[in-house]
Amino acid sequence: MAMDGYRGFLGLLVSALLVGFLSVIFTLIWVLHYREGLGWDGGASEFNWHPVLVVTGFVFIQGIAIIVYRLPWTWKCSKLLMKSIHAGLNTIAAILAIISLVAAFDFHNASHIPNMYSLHSWVGMIAVILYISQLLIGFFVFLLPLAPPSLRALLMPIHVYSGLFIFGTVIATVLMGVTEKLLFVLKKPAYSTFPPEGIFTNTLGLLILLFGALIFWIVTRPQWKRPKEPNSTLLQPNRGTPEGVEGSMATNFGNMDKSDSELNNEAAARKRNITLDEAGQRSTV
Amino acid sequence: MAMDGYRGFLGLLVSALLVGFLSVIFTLIWVLHYREGLGWDGGASEFNWHPVLVVTGFVFIQGIAIIVYRLPWTWKCSKLLMKSIHAGLNTIAAILAIISLVAAFDFHNASHIPNMYSLHSWVGMIAVILYISQLLIGFFVFLLPLAPPSLRALLMPIHVYSGLFIFGTVIATVLMGVTEKLLFVLKKPAYSTFPPEGIFTNTLGLLILLFGALIFWIVTRPQWKRPKEPNSTLLQPNRGTPEGVEGSMATNFGNMDKSDSELNNEAAARKRNITLDEAGQRSTV
Repeated sequence: MAMDGYRGFLGLLVSALLVGFLSVIFTLIWVLHYREGLGWDGGASEFNWHPVLVVTGFVFIQGIAIIVYRLPWTWKCSKLLMKSIHAGLNTIAAILAIISLVAAFDFHNASHIPNMYSLHSWVGMIAVILYISQLLIGFFVFLLPLAPPSLRALLMPIHVYSGLFIFGTVIATVLMGVTEKLLFVLKKPAYSTFPPEGIFTNTLGLLILLFGALIFWIVTRPQWKRPKEPNSTLLQPNRGTPEGVEGSMATNFGNMDKSDSELNNEAAARKRNITLDEAGQRSTV
Repeated sequence: MAMDGYRGFLGLLVSALLVGFLSVIFTLIWVLHYREGLGWDGGASEFNWHPVLVVTGFVFIQGIAIIVYRLPWTWKCSKLLMKSIHAGLNTIAAILAIISLVAAFDFHNASHIPNMYSLHSWVGMIAVILYISQLLIGFFVFLLPLAPPSLRALLMPIHVYSGLFIFGTVIATVLMGVTEKLLFVLKKPAYSTFPPEGIFTNTLGLLILLFGALIFWIVTRPQWKRPKEPNSTLLQPNRGTPEGVEGSMATNFGNMDKSDSELNNEAAARKRNITLDEAGQRSTV
């Protein structure tokens, strides 16, 4: 399926993947080379899973989950498949985020460091709670074929907004976490003397910010939104506008909520997809 | 002019103003009650201007500047007037941000604390540089009647995206700054023992995050966007859709860039506005 500004999209997608991957690598280098490595013994090496899992899951995988509908190669896949991938990636990210919390709490408890006193912990905990709520609501409202179309239409703009707000909040929390950790551990030489670990980890912070910037740009371009389901046109004989044109022109961030008519036809479209898939007429990647 | 969901808008606007105002008050209480107060002597009381000016200008005033086009009472004002208010508020915010930097650097220099070593300072400096660039580009491209419409159309989506990205980055930087400061100053009793100042300032951090959330919600609702200039319709006799309907339905975050036709007519519309204003037929608040 054709995409407006495909080369620009591809360039930004590759940049996002590269910067996100580099962020994970930088985090690993940080904990393995500059810090105590990785382990699960209640010590500093267990804590180190905290940044590794957060950057891998809560930043990188969540970022990919946000833009997954926009990959033009998936536009021929059924919406249900794409929703499952979106939900699956976010579930993986949530599991990694929860394990990362366990690592931090375990380390604190073993070292008799109080939990939940810092702004980093407050904002981070809010982000995790919102993320899990978003995941559960998304599962029951948008993935399972149970919710009435009116409820889906009502919640979709909130779902989209919340998703981006949580992602931004996670990035802000990571930057606070880096700040905290460097102030805790960089004593001799101090953080303020520009030691290599300080400069390296500040750079990691900038990479994560850049990853966020790229994801936000990709997800808010109206021309790169997945077109509406072609099946919903087939089921709406009176609709005047060709789906392809409408899909590429009228869809965007503030308008990601589906029209009632599309939602009404989704259950029928689902069944239709299954039939088409069985007949081998549609690729499901 | 009628606005879709006016009561919801009003509720959120009042909430945003309240939370933004509370953030400024909390910052003042923090530096006046818990810290060393305000002064300009190179000491801690000079540094305290840094959070006060950042939260007042770079957070609160910038937030208002972002949503100023969406106030329905201003929709009868000329676009040029609203652009001037938008630019004026951002200029005030930029000046306060620069003075806040001077306060921080002065304090560091007087106390022989190195500058620019922390992630907070790196990200904050990037935000200030981007903000001033955005202000200058906005002034020359969108406020002055010099730039060709094609350039405006090209830069508008980037201007909108950058504005929101910088605002989000500023909030992340503030949260890092709060984290840093509390770790520096809360020693006896330590931040980890939940002292009143820690809890109070963490709450300030949450207020600032909530302010950001409200501004982002308000600015990304398609139904609350300022309708396109009625004057541009008058100048486009062949346009089929009534502006009011089109303006309220098709405009949103990803689509804030103006159509070429509108941009082409802006210079003419400007002249027309002046005439109408002079004739007393339009209110300019």
